[in-house]
Amino acid sequence: MKAAKIPEVAIMRLAVYLRYLLQLKKTGQKITSSKEIATITGSTSAQVRKDLAYFGEFGVRGVGYDVEGLYNAISHIIGLDRSWDIVIIGAGHLGGALVSYSGFADRGFNIKAIFDIAPAKVGNVVEGKKIQKIDSFSEYVKKNKVDMAVIVVSGDSAQKVADLVVKSGIKAILNFAPVVLNTPLDVEVRNVDVSINLETLAYYMVSKGS
Amino acid sequence: MKAAKIPEVAIMRLAVYLRYLLQLKKTGQKITSSKEIATITGSTSAQVRKDLAYFGEFGVRGVGYDVEGLYNAISHIIGLDRSWDIVIIGAGHLGGALVSYSGFADRGFNIKAIFDIAPAKVGNVVEGKKIQKIDSFSEYVKKNKVDMAVIVVSGDSAQKVADLVVKSGIKAILNFAPVVLNTPLDVEVRNVDVSINLETLAYYMVSKGS
Repeated sequence: MKAAKIPEVAIMRLAVYLRYLLQLKKTGQKITSSKEIATITGSTSAQVRKDLAYFGEFGVRGVGYDVEGLYNAISHIIGLDRSWDIVIIGAGHLGGALVSYSGFADRGFNIKAIFDIAPAKVGNVVEGKKIQKIDSFSEYVKKNKVDMAVIVVSGDSAQKVADLVVKSGIKAILNFAPVVLNTPLDVEVRNVDVSINLETLAYYMVSKGS
Repeated sequence: MKAAKIPEVAIMRLAVYLRYLLQLKKTGQKITSSKEIATITGSTSAQVRKDLAYFGEFGVRGVGYDVEGLYNAISHIIGLDRSWDIVIIGAGHLGGALVSYSGFADRGFNIKAIFDIAPAKVGNVVEGKKIQKIDSFSEYVKKNKVDMAVIVVSGDSAQKVADLVVKSGIKAILNFAPVVLNTPLDVEVRNVDVSINLETLAYYMVSKGS
């Protein structure tokens, strides 16, 4: 696969197209077009066709895309036709909300364990999962398959936790802490920063004179 | 302000630079460079300089950027030197986590009220705020300043809630529901989809042969 040449934003757009195709599947629509996908997802037809062309030929000229077929193809490209084992580190409000978030399991992301750095929380149960102490993290990863780690600790603790995750051999991190993590190049990191989205909204409000 | 010409990704990068500048401020560092900002934020020097150039001249050639000055300038550009009143719609796990998330208030986003569509939840108290019924939403917006609405309901209810938000005159929405909202062009919407980030991680793991 020509992975290195495909921009990350194209992958994110594919994931958004996938959401939309799922909505179409649910309503029973059989055929869609790059124009329709573009309109709903805030893209352009040309962009949709280009994003899909990275991976092959999907549509039929003059007919459009088969909804089910395109859904399955994108699922396979992104890796959502298999399951992924994830662990959550940080059992605060947000960590707890993530454990109970059904959207993960629906898409093949299985939360296998939850850890916390605060001794007081260890042993408490969140959504049926007992919070484990961070000291036992490396041991856990040795004994269990872990594909990705989700870091939901405070900014102050995030780098220390990331170091531990990297040392344990995990190659993918989803980071909710509002800091930039230093990690080796072979570790993929995605940052989810809720307030960055609010900040871009703020910018648009300011520039409109609100 | 030449808002229309500035790509949204540039605004998001500015918000990331701002995070990093805050870290530098805390450690007492006075001067930084486009190279240093780029290294930490996974960008390039040229990109950093270009992003800043949209808004003016900030650095001094051969010296670099004044950390405090650049922090204040970006804060002003994004609109973080003022406060924003937001409401949360959806009092589930994630909605509750957002109400208690200190990162909002720290950056000038004040959560003024929380609403839910389930009658059973109305009247309960989350982090000191009484959950209000969605039927009283329009009335609330008429009587109070609301700059942005955060939608944290299920995918099934999100469009209905978005319609209500738009009808009330609010022009900025942060959407956590995993659906694409239909809104008028003058309403800015940002989507936070936690699993999209997991999906891009999954893609990179697949393409590496994990």
